[in-house]
Amino acid sequence: MATQTKLWNFSAGPAILPPSVFERAADAVRELRADGHAPGSPGVGMSILEVSHRSKPYEAITFGAEKLCHEVLGIPETHQVLFLQGGASLQFAMIPMNLREAGKRACYVDTGVWSQKAIAESQPLGETQVIASSAATNYDRIPAFPGGEAYAGASYVHITTNNTIFGTEYESIPRAEGDVPLVIDFSSHAGSRPMALENAALGYAGAQKNLGPSGVTLVYIRKDLLAKKPAGHVPVILRYATHAKEPSLYNTPNTFGVLVLKLVLEWMRDEGGLAAIGERNDRKAGKLYAALDASALFQPHAQPGSRSRMNVTWTAAGAPEAEREAITNKFLKEAQAAGFDGLKGHRSVGGLRASIYNAFPEAGVDALVDFINEFERKL
Amino acid sequence: MATQTKLWNFSAGPAILPPSVFERAADAVRELRADGHAPGSPGVGMSILEVSHRSKPYEAITFGAEKLCHEVLGIPETHQVLFLQGGASLQFAMIPMNLREAGKRACYVDTGVWSQKAIAESQPLGETQVIASSAATNYDRIPAFPGGEAYAGASYVHITTNNTIFGTEYESIPRAEGDVPLVIDFSSHAGSRPMALENAALGYAGAQKNLGPSGVTLVYIRKDLLAKKPAGHVPVILRYATHAKEPSLYNTPNTFGVLVLKLVLEWMRDEGGLAAIGERNDRKAGKLYAALDASALFQPHAQPGSRSRMNVTWTAAGAPEAEREAITNKFLKEAQAAGFDGLKGHRSVGGLRASIYNAFPEAGVDALVDFINEFERKL
Repeated sequence: MATQTKLWNFSAGPAILPPSVFERAADAVRELRADGHAPGSPGVGMSILEVSHRSKPYEAITFGAEKLCHEVLGIPETHQVLFLQGGASLQFAMIPMNLREAGKRACYVDTGVWSQKAIAESQPLGETQVIASSAATNYDRIPAFPGGEAYAGASYVHITTNNTIFGTEYESIPRAEGDVPLVIDFSSHAGSRPMALENAALGYAGAQKNLGPSGVTLVYIRKDLLAKKPAGHVPVILRYATHAKEPSLYNTPNTFGVLVLKLVLEWMRDEGGLAAIGERNDRKAGKLYAALDASALFQPHAQPGSRSRMNVTWTAAGAPEAEREAITNKFLKEAQAAGFDGLKGHRSVGGLRASIYNAFPEAGVDALVDFINEFERKL
Repeated sequence: MATQTKLWNFSAGPAILPPSVFERAADAVRELRADGHAPGSPGVGMSILEVSHRSKPYEAITFGAEKLCHEVLGIPETHQVLFLQGGASLQFAMIPMNLREAGKRACYVDTGVWSQKAIAESQPLGETQVIASSAATNYDRIPAFPGGEAYAGASYVHITTNNTIFGTEYESIPRAEGDVPLVIDFSSHAGSRPMALENAALGYAGAQKNLGPSGVTLVYIRKDLLAKKPAGHVPVILRYATHAKEPSLYNTPNTFGVLVLKLVLEWMRDEGGLAAIGERNDRKAGKLYAALDASALFQPHAQPGSRSRMNVTWTAAGAPEAEREAITNKFLKEAQAAGFDGLKGHRSVGGLRASIYNAFPEAGVDALVDFINEFERKL
């Protein structure tokens, strides 16, 4: 916390980033340094906001960030890293446009709101099959990943590996059988722990959770997919191949956003990488789930085995149904007054949600646990 | 110029912004202030990079910026202002997707590279007619805007009102006859002077010239167009109506970019608005063109009556053809050493280009004029 006025920021995204990244990013707005804003490098005489994307200083940023995506996040070299715009929402449209092959269906696993938005962009383009869903239990779990017969012959199979709204997460990234490409939306847990990213043929993440500010989308795509012939016409700007040819420089990128992404990846590397970060995230989420499991008043929405380490959702399920909303509102009001910001749950679940991304301090989780216990004691 | 190390930044975009905007933006990265980062307002306890786009602090930013687009840029209230992502390049695709009606052609005026990219995204979707072009003279002028018979019955007619690469600019925004919507790409001169923006049914501008950083696209669209039925399927995320319904908040916007856009619009307002800014830009461009017209060595590429006030292009046309490239390279090398950055012309024109956007100081133009005169004298 940089100042006394700082709040505990539990926002689901845009979300908290490390204080050192805020400092370095602010400095780059004043004057960018050479070598991708490396500490100790000379200033380039310009703000990051006015530097051409065709210049040497920006090349050091974008190619540096690309390299760190491989080294720190573990994106395999078989895949091209891209920094695009438009968020995960634009990927929902680009995926069926680019990956749907003539005469083949697209398969999706439905784990909630964001999956459904992805499905909705696929349906008008052709046959779209939901091969698994946890709708029946209000998305409180990740359904078992189906065997290869469920998606045999499909153009691709799409999953949402962390569900920000419902607070569920795949324990591990599954392997699709046969040669059907697996596509993952890993927006809200990208970079949170070591993951088998190589299991996906294409992965995408809006940066505004663990990776950076809003306005940048990280995409990685297996290079052989770039040559696939899609079923329909795809505008030039919406083709992955366009952006891979001159990597992330076909049109003017979000230059500041890519710099911040690079600064975040450097912070992750310096913190000990995904192994160390994953351990800390396990501990943070573990403390919060333990407090909620021990509570007579509150109850986590997500079931064990499907619980997100990034987005912890809970309701006042221990209270009589008629009182839950009032209790939730009282909690929110008192929490806000005590400096806990962004705890309101999404209307699809109701209740409360704490997003505790990489940069969210463990001390904030401890403070929230204390606040929850104290709230219940006094109620 | 904030420091001694600063260069004169003639970059075509991302481009120079006012030093006070850099300062305020850097402060917001450290801690955002309330009321859209108003000076004197209290800090909100968070960086702009971690503030939710669904929060009160961000609403003050986005709705404040929207209001300033009407007040400062003169976008009429009949049109909805949108802050999108993907740059002008994504608009090249969104326009034919959204505005092309069944059985009607789309008409374009071809004034160079960016027009052609817009045309290329329209052609695969249906009949696309080029109704005027200055290709024959390597885009050294703006062709006369054709009469209504040229585009009668079209879905829309599209023009590029300032051409960054060739350095040409429409003296005024034409009125399309009949009820054919005029669409303008005004990316590289948006906000440079008073303009009849109301003549366009839809206008768009990548922000990274006069308006802000890269990663934000300003779009304004006449509200009746939002209800038009396009000829083909349009993905939800690529519909203007999607972004107009919950203005610029359908999906996570580039929150930092929209803040900087707002700060730039405030600066423009405080400078005296478009009238005062336009006068200064006339003076700046006038000095540079006068020097080039007086030169025996150099010659502006753009013809009088079509000359951009934002992007001044010139070649060593006064030298024997065999020597021009060497002279241009010598000029570039010596200019760089003297602190003039970004003067290399686009390969389509060759030669040199000075982008002198709103925030580019008149003193820098004076310095460049002196440098040009001195270079020629010593040659």
